[in-house]
Amino acid sequence: MPPQDPHTPPLALVMVGLPARGKTYISRKISRYLSWLGYQTRVFNVGNYRRARLGAAQAHAFFDPTNAQGVEARRQLAMAALRDMLKWLKGGGQVGIYDATNTTGERRRLVLEECGKAGVQVVFVESICDSAVVEANIREVKLGSPDYVDMTPEEAADDFRARIAHYERSYEPLDDPELAYVKLIDVGRQVVVNGVEGYLCARLVFFLMNIHTDRRAIWLTRHGESEYNVQNRIGGDPELTALGKGYAKNLASYIQERVPKSQEFVLWTSTLRRTWQTAEPIGRELTQWRVLDEIDAGECDGMTYDEIRRERPEEFRARAEDKLRYRYPRGESYADVIQRLEPVIVELERQKRPVLVVSHQGIIRGLYGYLIGRPQEECPHIQVPLHTLIEMTPTAYGYEERRIKLGPELG
Amino acid sequence: MPPQDPHTPPLALVMVGLPARGKTYISRKISRYLSWLGYQTRVFNVGNYRRARLGAAQAHAFFDPTNAQGVEARRQLAMAALRDMLKWLKGGGQVGIYDATNTTGERRRLVLEECGKAGVQVVFVESICDSAVVEANIREVKLGSPDYVDMTPEEAADDFRARIAHYERSYEPLDDPELAYVKLIDVGRQVVVNGVEGYLCARLVFFLMNIHTDRRAIWLTRHGESEYNVQNRIGGDPELTALGKGYAKNLASYIQERVPKSQEFVLWTSTLRRTWQTAEPIGRELTQWRVLDEIDAGECDGMTYDEIRRERPEEFRARAEDKLRYRYPRGESYADVIQRLEPVIVELERQKRPVLVVSHQGIIRGLYGYLIGRPQEECPHIQVPLHTLIEMTPTAYGYEERRIKLGPELG
Repeated sequence: MPPQDPHTPPLALVMVGLPARGKTYISRKISRYLSWLGYQTRVFNVGNYRRARLGAAQAHAFFDPTNAQGVEARRQLAMAALRDMLKWLKGGGQVGIYDATNTTGERRRLVLEECGKAGVQVVFVESICDSAVVEANIREVKLGSPDYVDMTPEEAADDFRARIAHYERSYEPLDDPELAYVKLIDVGRQVVVNGVEGYLCARLVFFLMNIHTDRRAIWLTRHGESEYNVQNRIGGDPELTALGKGYAKNLASYIQERVPKSQEFVLWTSTLRRTWQTAEPIGRELTQWRVLDEIDAGECDGMTYDEIRRERPEEFRARAEDKLRYRYPRGESYADVIQRLEPVIVELERQKRPVLVVSHQGIIRGLYGYLIGRPQEECPHIQVPLHTLIEMTPTAYGYEERRIKLGPELG
Repeated sequence: MPPQDPHTPPLALVMVGLPARGKTYISRKISRYLSWLGYQTRVFNVGNYRRARLGAAQAHAFFDPTNAQGVEARRQLAMAALRDMLKWLKGGGQVGIYDATNTTGERRRLVLEECGKAGVQVVFVESICDSAVVEANIREVKLGSPDYVDMTPEEAADDFRARIAHYERSYEPLDDPELAYVKLIDVGRQVVVNGVEGYLCARLVFFLMNIHTDRRAIWLTRHGESEYNVQNRIGGDPELTALGKGYAKNLASYIQERVPKSQEFVLWTSTLRRTWQTAEPIGRELTQWRVLDEIDAGECDGMTYDEIRRERPEEFRARAEDKLRYRYPRGESYADVIQRLEPVIVELERQKRPVLVVSHQGIIRGLYGYLIGRPQEECPHIQVPLHTLIEMTPTAYGYEERRIKLGPELG
């Protein structure tokens, strides 16, 4: 993956779509992805401005386009969020995501004009869904919204449908060939990309083409204890210890109980033996994937941290000062690792089957950091102990995490 | 980039579009890309069947949909090409590209049915262009076609426009939501992707989104002679020799003469010093790109081939037997290198500015192999001498190549 183009202007991704079309889901996915890739990214959600300023409990009449007071109040909220986003982009932000309905051509022209004045490039991202997707979204997400804490589910669903109907009356889908836009229909079934240029946008579109809303577990784990773990050495291609083999067995039982043989399942390891030895007892077809190999320690491969500190003190110090960007001599940095993991992330998003990744500390830090939405800087510091399975279950907007100690306990 | 999914069924990419919409250009680009990625890929061009069986000189009346004899003859040609493609896919081919107009729903249903019977997955690829693109295509490509060897350019262009008009009368653009398709409008300005699933197709769509028809030079070169070149050693991070520095100067003069300071220009090197030292005298901003680093020789890094033969004879032999797939112990194979170069290829396609890549023998072999359309197997054996600039100029369907010895000559 190429390095970032330093000439990229600040970018506004402007969401478009009726309520309950997954705009917030998509906004957060994009934000997580771009932050992890190292871009300063932030979501500006107009609904949150409304709740913060006017309180959550606004019945659907507030959204009626014939209610002049409501229209003006909503316009002011939208402008406040837009102004904050442009201010943030001027102050060093790189990608602002403007999460609002923006369902009229007039509103979009206004947004475009304001962004233009601020020298900010605009790409619209419209989400269109068929009614089944919308109903599922209302039931799974919207009824739990702070807007509806005091209502029964039936009342809330009715109010929300009335709110959608207000927007539908004035909705004008995107179709201006002069605009740069991405149209997502039924989250990935159909994608229309118009006038979108530049490296970052091309990657983003590829990412958006591969996301979906099917729910399936993602498991992450380091390999079982290896001979090098015992000696405190990094790198190499050592064998599992007896304890490490014990973990492999426990892992196999755990997975076999949860994924019946008849169910499709994806099992990825690195090309290093400690990972595929850990995965083999599961008895499933596995794919060895070179980009899942541990961070390359270059000239320090095979050394202990103590040896590095004694023999290469300048390296030891440089690494302590900037663990993200520090690159082992002739080896890799965590930032390099994150770049090479990007295709794994896209592939992980694309898979609709449950996935288990058996890899290494540095790699699991990168993948897990993406899933829980951490920026690059934090990834090298995430705790990922041995003999612990990380279970990620999708929720409305992210993942719920469980850490399962499978043993055997290490001395 | 993930390894190939072994469960991918054979795939037919079925082109759709009026004459002069770049179907053959796109077919060949896809074919070159997928072959290089290691897929067995072949184009089946119905026009070539017509020329081979009926001779090139068919006036536009042959394409008139009211000419029953012509209609039947063209149907037979189309079916012959389709049958050959399906036979080839059954015999181990992975991706067949069916390069024909397929502009009616009826014809597409027939193709879909035949592919379905053969267990072949179908994705339609439709190209739609505005009239300026079409006219340029007629002038630049079609007038040189074997169909028009005996006509003046004016006669040929008139005949070709009449041929297009025949197709236009019965043209039905793709819009069936049940079909898997990619619609390319003005080669990349707008892209519509419908119902396309699977890893290979996702990559392919990303590739298609980034191609364009703007012409600009691509230059490839190895770094100037290094200390390791003199000693016959592989790998390492050596300095340039005096002769190597001489090459860097000659290269700078050559590029500066052809790319004025006022013109935008893209300059990529690896992170290894012998490449950026070679590029620096050009005096342009350069990007160091880690994926352009030389093939990783792992435990053999820093050795001479003689030493490898003596000290690790089993490695030397394994490499001689399968240079593409042979992986240095704890290092890379050429197949690994091609996988990691894939994003560079997409980025190279996307760039509209002239590009110079200063890298290493193994890397230039991979990039050059893609540009001239070689399958993976041949890439490790391509000759790429030192102190020689490879200049690639786009032509109608590929690149014209010049090799420029810039000196100084090596001892």
